[in-house]
Amino acid sequence: MDSQFGAAAESVDPTLEADVFVKNCTSRPVLQNVAGRWGTLALVALRAGPIRFSALRRRVDGVSERMLSQTLQALERDGMVHREVHETIPPKVEYTLTELGAQVAEHLETLIHLIEANMPTIHQAQASYRRD
Amino acid sequence: MDSQFGAAAESVDPTLEADVFVKNCTSRPVLQNVAGRWGTLALVALRAGPIRFSALRRRVDGVSERMLSQTLQALERDGMVHREVHETIPPKVEYTLTELGAQVAEHLETLIHLIEANMPTIHQAQASYRRD
Repeated sequence: MDSQFGAAAESVDPTLEADVFVKNCTSRPVLQNVAGRWGTLALVALRAGPIRFSALRRRVDGVSERMLSQTLQALERDGMVHREVHETIPPKVEYTLTELGAQVAEHLETLIHLIEANMPTIHQAQASYRRD
Repeated sequence: MDSQFGAAAESVDPTLEADVFVKNCTSRPVLQNVAGRWGTLALVALRAGPIRFSALRRRVDGVSERMLSQTLQALERDGMVHREVHETIPPKVEYTLTELGAQVAEHLETLIHLIEANMPTIHQAQASYRRD
């Protein structure tokens, strides 16, 4: 069953263009992994350079160990993040952005800055929405 | 209780800068609403111009009526989307992007195009991740 699964995933027709608006397009889960709750924060935090799991977890305030671990696995699987094990005692595991991950993270950081800079406007909208 | 809630939300210190990396910053749920599973697709679909709920639902393939409705409410509350009721018979409800929503949607579309264009690289990464 596993091999069938692998075969199906690898037989993606390369002449078909990806379209996240199509329900079963393989690009949609990738978008969800990078734009999701923790994916965005992890990718943008990784822009500062190689970082260990514990430091990343402190930076992404509020994420559980389990959620950060799942998030990093998904990002590594999609080729956004590289996980490097250094053979020290104890072993040191560091995460870095791949070239593609760096491009994605740059766009996400621009988006974050846009939202942060517009919080006064957003707060006004939220206040008037409640008054309706 | 409701008024306390409103007061708390409106007493946000305007001299404090927003930072999505801080767990309780009010910018974090806003980021989640625009970058979330359906928020991204709805905002980018709205770039094509005013659209009715049913047409938007067809465009955002796979979204349930309930999820799209919740997504649009959150985006309207955050000042990203404007909901206009035309007093026709039957009444016609159309959704458009606000100025801020249009800026956010532009960045999200760039991100989507980046991912779609890199799907061959991403498929390779996924295939080699399985082989590990």
